[in-house]
Formats: sequence, structure tokens, C-alpha cells
Amino acid sequence: MAKSSNITAAKGFRAGGMTCGIKTSGKPDLVIITSDFPCASAGVFTTNKMPGAPVIVSKKHVANGKAQAIVCNSGCSNVCTGEQGIADALTMCLQTGQQLGIDPSDVLVCSTGVIGHMLPMDKIEAGIENLAPKLKRGPQADAATAKAILTTDLVPKTAHVSFKLGTKTIHIGGIAKGSGMIAPNMATMLSFITTDIAITPALLKQVLKRVADISYNRISVDEDTSTSDSVLILANGQAGNRLIDKPGKNLTLFENALTQLCKDLAYQIVKDGEGATRVYRAQVSGAASIKDANLIGKTIANSPLVKTAVHGCDPNWGRLVMAVGRSGANVKPQKLDIAIGGILLCKSGQPTQLSKTQLVKVEKHMMSKEVLLSVNLNMGQGESEWLGCDLSREYITINADYTT
Amino acid sequence: MAKSSNITAAKGFRAGGMTCGIKTSGKPDLVIITSDFPCASAGVFTTNKMPGAPVIVSKKHVANGKAQAIVCNSGCSNVCTGEQGIADALTMCLQTGQQLGIDPSDVLVCSTGVIGHMLPMDKIEAGIENLAPKLKRGPQADAATAKAILTTDLVPKTAHVSFKLGTKTIHIGGIAKGSGMIAPNMATMLSFITTDIAITPALLKQVLKRVADISYNRISVDEDTSTSDSVLILANGQAGNRLIDKPGKNLTLFENALTQLCKDLAYQIVKDGEGATRVYRAQVSGAASIKDANLIGKTIANSPLVKTAVHGCDPNWGRLVMAVGRSGANVKPQKLDIAIGGILLCKSGQPTQLSKTQLVKVEKHMMSKEVLLSVNLNMGQGESEWLGCDLSREYITINADYTT
Repeated sequence: MAKSSNITAAKGFRAGGMTCGIKTSGKPDLVIITSDFPCASAGVFTTNKMPGAPVIVSKKHVANGKAQAIVCNSGCSNVCTGEQGIADALTMCLQTGQQLGIDPSDVLVCSTGVIGHMLPMDKIEAGIENLAPKLKRGPQADAATAKAILTTDLVPKTAHVSFKLGTKTIHIGGIAKGSGMIAPNMATMLSFITTDIAITPALLKQVLKRVADISYNRISVDEDTSTSDSVLILANGQAGNRLIDKPGKNLTLFENALTQLCKDLAYQIVKDGEGATRVYRAQVSGAASIKDANLIGKTIANSPLVKTAVHGCDPNWGRLVMAVGRSGANVKPQKLDIAIGGILLCKSGQPTQLSKTQLVKVEKHMMSKEVLLSVNLNMGQGESEWLGCDLSREYITINADYTT
Repeated sequence: MAKSSNITAAKGFRAGGMTCGIKTSGKPDLVIITSDFPCASAGVFTTNKMPGAPVIVSKKHVANGKAQAIVCNSGCSNVCTGEQGIADALTMCLQTGQQLGIDPSDVLVCSTGVIGHMLPMDKIEAGIENLAPKLKRGPQADAATAKAILTTDLVPKTAHVSFKLGTKTIHIGGIAKGSGMIAPNMATMLSFITTDIAITPALLKQVLKRVADISYNRISVDEDTSTSDSVLILANGQAGNRLIDKPGKNLTLFENALTQLCKDLAYQIVKDGEGATRVYRAQVSGAASIKDANLIGKTIANSPLVKTAVHGCDPNWGRLVMAVGRSGANVKPQKLDIAIGGILLCKSGQPTQLSKTQLVKVEKHMMSKEVLLSVNLNMGQGESEWLGCDLSREYITINADYTT
């Protein structure tokens, strides 16, 4: 069997994806991921105050720090569906649990797609019954799973890292979706992560929160947050390492590996942003605090005027000045430095005198696939890095021209 | 002489606009507005923490509540220009004051256009010398003035209201610019208002602040705030009314008229938003507080996904759900009502069952020039109304395809 490269890369996990008929396109739309052993588990969920029913149910099911399976459909988000929506999400857990022989409260559930429609439960129930016995390990199962959580994403997003803890090899595999739509849907972000590390639920929760904050929470396609965003992790301990139950070197090694994986997946989401042709990295340094650095990074990642400048390959640093100024962060105008592609365009709040060669270099950098926008406030130690993508006509096409 | 309809509609004001050569297009780019009599004066300025030199200077000059003239150039914003920028803004005041025979500290100054370039002071100084002696009253002067503050705005924005205070007729005239760019500029909002009412500077300041908050501060084209936004008002008392020096009926009459004028100009700005084809009105009611209502109204006015839905005539109320949920306002999902064009699409957090006739009605409404999006939280008395415009490919063209 070829080596598995993502969601079943860790020992003891099986997964699968299939078409159950929610999407009219006939594309795959149902996924189950499970561990053959009990898992420590944690989740990070949307802060949107109109969360979907699956978010409400998964939050409850993950609260005790254990879970053993994830069931997810794409094509219908089960948001704004009232009590029936909650009942439907619970039914998905119940049925998945029964099929897999695990407690339904150990099943986490996600849905992504159109808001305000009821799930076609007959199709989903038939799908779960069909899919659950067929879950497998290996590249084919990986590929089917990564594909079936997508909506209008152009490409599946997958990642895998491994590292040594003493003599044991730890695997972490993950998949994600985001930045796509099916008319008339929200862009939604989902990520599922499996690992064979042995770790306590409490530490897993802390680590996932910290890692999500510097990976998935530092990207922007269009600033609009979804009602379904969820990041879920299952850790089944099958790698055989000594249980990580306190902070220390082993926890740090795990956190670093998980960070690498999640940053990789987050980058893939931005790169596949709706209509995106290029990615930009907003590097903020010298802020009075990390909070300030994040305010500025986020504003640059969100700004339509920065996005369109990147799309037009225009080294228009005035738009970065604007974004810094409107971010709400502390700033001393006479200390502000701005560079694009490492070349200083604004020093101490005033334009630098660029040579012709430097100007050509900046313009060339603006045409590259990844643009580096650096802001230094020269006020303190606050640093932050955010990812954004450009804003193109295709974004308008995707989001305006599909009609209900 | 034909009746003046805006900036010189009030007694005792003269104005003019001309080409002084800042814009390479040769379009008009210099404006002076003055009163023949001393004025009470007030200003509201950008909250952007990288304000332009003219903002810094005008704030100082208006601090004592008096002013007698405004000088403004378009084509170069005088932002990120350090001490030289401050000196240049002061020079504009000094020269305008000398030409008009008034104290330079009674001159307010604005600049709009590209960030990070020095003003071409030789051209501006020659322009002021040329223009100042030619200021006039009447339609021609009005038109020239309204035109010369524009950047890539498609149309001038002008308004005039009058009302009676006892036997006296009060005039208020105004012009505005906004939502336009010249490559590679920020969208900027400027508005200049003249009136012949007699009012104390302290009350004028209070009224202008309140009015700006519910007019200019409740619109969004693309969320990006400018480093130059300024609203300035001059009140010269020539209508002959008894000085308004305390709250009461007369102040209310003035405030209502000023609100009407500013809302009119704000609407014109949104309508002429970059690439905009249509306006939408976000009406929020039933919020727990006005603050919450504003959070939601602002999020709907800013949201790229709402903007693209309006552009695509798509009655996609799920995007309003998303915007309500991400606004930060308090919301009880099971109480949320959403209507488009007055037709309820979501009742108590769940989809309504629309008849075919109603659905056709909603779809027809989405195609109209002004779309009404209503959100009722059913939680309290908080109300707010915001204006947004749609997001079109033309926005991308304007902001991406112009290069430096």
C-alpha cells in the first residue's frame, strides 16, 4: 500500500468520502473520519454569533476532551435551521456512532454550504450507512476524504508532518477547505487533523487554540467570517510515546509540528481564495504590542484597496499607510517604515528616494506569486504575520453572478 | 443672476475653482471658498492615525471656532510628507489669507489625491494668487468649485436647503467629494458647507459632530478610510437671525436642515462609489442598543459578500445572517428576522415559506436601483440605518489596473 499523506497518515485512523446527493453537481459531499481507538480531542469554532447547528453540537461533544469520529457534509451548511437543524446534526452523530460502534457523543459533526436550508436527511442517512463500513487507510481514502469536504475550492488542501519523540515517530495529518462557494453560500473554513500522539485532552486543547490563532486566524480572503468555521483534532495515542501531560520539550516539539502543518493548510486556503491569483504576506514589526501588530496585519490582509493594488501589481505603499492608520493601532507617523519586497519605500513617515534600479526591482517583486509587504512601526517589540490574497474580477463573478 | 444652488447659496459667500496644474489630466484642481464676514466654524476629521498635513493644520485653525476661508487642492493629498508637508499646508493658508485680507489662521486647508508625494507648491502658489481675486457668487462659481475638488468621482455632489427662522430665511449649501481615486490614490471624503445662520461656534461644533455621525459616518464604499477625510462648515450670521446660543427649537430646526443636506450629500457619495451600479440601505431595528445597531449596519455596509450579492441581484439573505453574526453585536439567533424589499425571508432565525409571487417580488426588488435590506433583532430599541453600494468588476478595474 502506498504511503498515506494526510488524514490517515497517523496510525489507527480510517476515512472516506463519497457522493450522497446533496450537491446537484453530483460531486462528493459526505465524509467520515474515525480512529480505531479512543482519542483525546479538541476544537476551535467560529466566533460568528449565528453559528450553525453542527457547531453547536460539536462544541458540546468535544467539551469532555474526547471523541472518536468526525462526520461532515458539504453542499448545505445547516445554519438558520432552528431546532430541526439541531436534531438533524444529532441524527448524523447518532447514525455515525451506531455504524462505527462508538458513542454518538464521541462523534463530531460539520456541515458547509448554503445557509437557511434544511439538510436532505434521507440522502445523508443513506450515505452514512453506505460510507461507514468502507472507511480505509491509504492514499485513495485520503484523496476521497479531502475532496468531499470542498465546495467551490479549486483544489483539495492536504498536509502531513512527522517528527521523532525519543524512539517513536509521531504523525500529524490534516485536510482543509475554505475560500470557495457554492451559490449562494458563505465561504467557510473547515480543517480536520488526526495524530497518533499520546497527549492529554487539556493540553491538546491549549495547543490547538494557540496554533489556530497564528495560522487559520491570520488569513483573510474577504473578511467575511463563516457561520460554520471549525477546526477539529483527534489524537489517539497509537504512536506509543509517553503521554504528554505537562508543558516541556515534548509538548513544544508537538506544537511546532502542528504549527507547521496548520500554517501550510492556511496558506493553501489563501492561495485558493475566491478569484485569487496571488498571495501576499503582511509582516508587521516594531509595534507597541502584539495586539497592535495583529490589528495592523489584519487590516492589511482585509483591505480591498491593498488587495486591488496587489492584483494590479501596483507598489502603492500609500494604501499601506492608510491601512496602518485605520487599524486602530498606536502609530507615530514620523517613525513609520514601509517596505515592499524588502525595499524601503517609506522611511520615518516620508517617501524614500528610490534609484531607478530599486524601483524596477519593487515593480518586479509586485508581479511575483507571493508579495511581501512589511511595516515597521519602530515603537516596540510587537510582531505579527498575516496572509491575504488579491481581489480580482473573478471574486465578483463567483460571488455576484451565481444567483439563487 | 441665476439663483445659486449650493456653496454660495448662503449670503456673503464667494467661491471658485480652477486648474493650477497638479493633475496631469489638466482637470480643475484648486478651490477657494470664503465669506466676506467672520464665521463661526467647525470641522470633523478622519480618525485615521496617519492623517495628512492639511488635517493637522485645519484641526488647529478651527480649534478656536472661527474661520473665514477654505483652500483645497485635488490631485495630491500631502500625506506622509513630514515637516515639509506641514510647512506647505501652512503656506497655502498664509497665501490665501494674504490674498483675501484675512488672518492665515482663519483659513482651513484640505488636500486630496496621491499619498507620499510633495505638493507642487510653485503651481499651487501661482494658482492661489490667480484664483483668490476671482471668487464669485452664483451658479458658475458653484459649479467650478464643486468640480475642482473631485478626483475620479464621476459627478459633482452638491446640495442646498433653506428654512425659516421667524421672518428670516436661512440657507445652507454644501459640496462633497468621495469614492473616487486617481491612481494610485485613496478614496477620500471631503465636504464643505456654508451657511448664513448666526450660531455660536460651540453649538455649531456639537451639531456638526452629531450630523456627521448619522450621515457621512454611516456610508461605506469599501471600508478603507482615508487619511484626508474632512467635513468643514462656515456660518457667517448674515441671515440676520437672532444668534442661536442655546439648545431649543431654533437649534433643532437648523440641525434638521443640516442633517437633510448632509444625508443628501452622503447618498450622492455612495451612489458615485467606485464602480457602483446600485445603492443599498441597511436598516437595523430591535437591537439591544444603538451601538449594536451600528455594529450590524456597518458590517452589512462593508461586507464584500453582501456587496457582491447586491451586485448580482441575488436575494441571498444568508449573507445578512453571516454579517449579523460577525458584527460583534448581541444577537439571539432564534429571534432574528430578515426582510428584503419589505418581504420577510427569515423569521425567528428560520427561513419563511415564500409563495412564488413573493419570491418573484423579492427578486424584482433586488434588481432595483436602491435595495432595502432590513434586519430586526427583536431584542430592544436600538435602530440604525447605513448606506452601501455594490461591488463590481469596475471597482477592481479602478483600483487595480491603474498603476503608478
